[in-house]
Amino acid sequence: MALPGFRDFYPDDCAFRNAIFTKWREVAHRYGFVEYDGPPLEPLDLFTKKSGDEIVTQLYHFKDKGERDVALRPEMTPTLARLVTARHKDFKKPLKWFSIPQVFRYERQQKGRLREHYQLNCDIIGEAGLEADIELIALVIDVLRAFGLTEKDFVVRLSDRQFWTDFMNAHGVPEEQRYAFIQAIDKSEREPREKTAEKLGPLAEEVFAILADAGSTKSERLDTVETGLRHRGLQDYVKRDFTVVRGLAYYTGVVFEVFDRSGEFRAIAGGGRYDTLLKNLGGVDLPALGFGIGDVVLGEILKGKAAFKPPEPGGLFVVIADGTDRAKALAIVQRLRETLTCPVDYSLTPMKFGRQLQRSEESGYAKAIIIDQDTLQRGVYSIKDLSNRQKIEIGSIEDLTMENLFPTSGTDPSTSSG
Amino acid sequence: MALPGFRDFYPDDCAFRNAIFTKWREVAHRYGFVEYDGPPLEPLDLFTKKSGDEIVTQLYHFKDKGERDVALRPEMTPTLARLVTARHKDFKKPLKWFSIPQVFRYERQQKGRLREHYQLNCDIIGEAGLEADIELIALVIDVLRAFGLTEKDFVVRLSDRQFWTDFMNAHGVPEEQRYAFIQAIDKSEREPREKTAEKLGPLAEEVFAILADAGSTKSERLDTVETGLRHRGLQDYVKRDFTVVRGLAYYTGVVFEVFDRSGEFRAIAGGGRYDTLLKNLGGVDLPALGFGIGDVVLGEILKGKAAFKPPEPGGLFVVIADGTDRAKALAIVQRLRETLTCPVDYSLTPMKFGRQLQRSEESGYAKAIIIDQDTLQRGVYSIKDLSNRQKIEIGSIEDLTMENLFPTSGTDPSTSSG
Repeated sequence: MALPGFRDFYPDDCAFRNAIFTKWREVAHRYGFVEYDGPPLEPLDLFTKKSGDEIVTQLYHFKDKGERDVALRPEMTPTLARLVTARHKDFKKPLKWFSIPQVFRYERQQKGRLREHYQLNCDIIGEAGLEADIELIALVIDVLRAFGLTEKDFVVRLSDRQFWTDFMNAHGVPEEQRYAFIQAIDKSEREPREKTAEKLGPLAEEVFAILADAGSTKSERLDTVETGLRHRGLQDYVKRDFTVVRGLAYYTGVVFEVFDRSGEFRAIAGGGRYDTLLKNLGGVDLPALGFGIGDVVLGEILKGKAAFKPPEPGGLFVVIADGTDRAKALAIVQRLRETLTCPVDYSLTPMKFGRQLQRSEESGYAKAIIIDQDTLQRGVYSIKDLSNRQKIEIGSIEDLTMENLFPTSGTDPSTSSG
Repeated sequence: MALPGFRDFYPDDCAFRNAIFTKWREVAHRYGFVEYDGPPLEPLDLFTKKSGDEIVTQLYHFKDKGERDVALRPEMTPTLARLVTARHKDFKKPLKWFSIPQVFRYERQQKGRLREHYQLNCDIIGEAGLEADIELIALVIDVLRAFGLTEKDFVVRLSDRQFWTDFMNAHGVPEEQRYAFIQAIDKSEREPREKTAEKLGPLAEEVFAILADAGSTKSERLDTVETGLRHRGLQDYVKRDFTVVRGLAYYTGVVFEVFDRSGEFRAIAGGGRYDTLLKNLGGVDLPALGFGIGDVVLGEILKGKAAFKPPEPGGLFVVIADGTDRAKALAIVQRLRETLTCPVDYSLTPMKFGRQLQRSEESGYAKAIIIDQDTLQRGVYSIKDLSNRQKIEIGSIEDLTMENLFPTSGTDPSTSSG
């Protein structure tokens, strides 16, 4: 048994996971983001410096054999900050960087709660303008659209953390009450109105009015972001929602969370601007923003919708007829593996023709290719489509190309409902 | 700073690492292997059960918050054994499975020695015949050939662990001396002859004769394997070498190690047959064999040879001329990102035309595309090749396709010496 909260990835699971990673990489690359990575094990204080000592209760941490306090990373931002701080002069700003780390949290086990997951992290560092916020939000939208999800499936709830800071300033909310104030807004959707009202005190009605009619609340930042997204044709994917404040203390500007429209799942993704974090961590003073999207909630949504399937292996199973010179047949296998880009498999040990055919049907591959004495003498190959049992002949080994074996149907197999 | 022995992957390093992973996956898939994965953190006893308690001195291990003894995986085989044992009935044998885990060992630091590396693991489970050994060795050869390495660059040293077991049986080597006997052979290349002779005692001369003239030593197993590889045209990649015994105790048949011909590096890869391991671990009684190849030694060799480079991003930098309607230009960016599969980047904030051109030159992308008022009025796009500064015009957005922007040159950029 794996440890509780940890997943094994049998081949089907691994193919599904990797297909998610592939889409993530494709879209991030398309937006000009480049990939980085760091160690899963880091010095413990890298994480406590950002999140305070309370984070330790959620960490996998220990002393290594060199008496160093170390921890499995619970998130990627501290590692990103460490990397950028060490070498920011080597790179033109803004940096557009992404990573797909596995992250770890020791949380008390709840149904379906894992202690690890993979997370696409996309960050823009060194650009203070709202153009960066627009770019980042367009990216999170396109990451989800790449899986066949549409504006009917998900919505990006846009908010402005600075709006609430300004609001608290204007109404003289004392410093020591601000964290609780923000938390009350964060929880307002899930708690009874009276409870939130009690927490917010005399400002409750004004806050409720803002939350109820977000569209009429003034935020130049959000106006600009929404306009930018409209120019890109992405306006139907976003909605102003001032209940979104992002729990963590370090956000400074536009923040957002992505939810499925059905309301069935936890947040799919979340992020925002954190202009002071790098400096506060003792690093460089660079504005920054980013989002994270996990593989677990996204995976659940994709499985429910069947809009997305991992690509089929599309391979070739070589069936060697009884009495055929096996050495020559295996030389053909070798050659096919050198010239084709698809899997080429066969029965490792000699097996009756009929059993090999059966094996080919069960293989999950797209085609079977039959090698018999006739093949070896005349160079003719019989190809069987395993989905419909239709056969074709190919007259020479030179013609056994990907194009001839797998004529493209013009559809992307990874997004068909297959 | 990262922990000692742990690597950061800045974008260039990450691209190089990922290009290795991509090749590994491509070749394993071509051989009909499917990918699996498991957690990097496992119960400690999963590893001590296989390797004994001594392994603990090399592990990152600790008690988690649930008082479980856990460890970062030092190798993948125990996880593979766990997965196969739990669900072997769900899969047709033989299994051909691979994985690319990051593995961790707390070794005393030596120059260049890391405490983590990635390792391609390929295993065949449930096939006792030597056909599986041939397939596996052909795979390790093709994995290395995929990087442009040839028989001039590396050699697979083939040996037969069972040959030595038979030899010890025939000469009555007592059970308690066998481990040391095998170790002495393993070290014979690196130690003075006298020292090895002392360890081997009266059998020394006979052993030296076998090691010196491996070709004339009888091993039907190796004959069969060599014949099988010859049928596939891979005979020049292998050499019999009975000094290869693979330190670990569990190998049972054909074993092999891969070395660079220059002798400059540690082993590139190693593996062999371990027919009794799964049963001994308390699992199912299935014959098995496999190999591991790490990213570090391979990476050093590839960097030295320059035979292999990560693929170029090949992208497009959009330059927006002064005075152009930026909203319309960004709508074009969005459209290009939807229709092209390459990176499409631009300056997030408005910037003078000249500076954008300069930025495009520094971007590392293949082409720049200029959007100006003329573009918006007439739909004509000026495309600049950033490698030779040649310009072409493309007359409509529909013609801005991958084929028109990046006509294929017929060479695989990932293996060119660029």
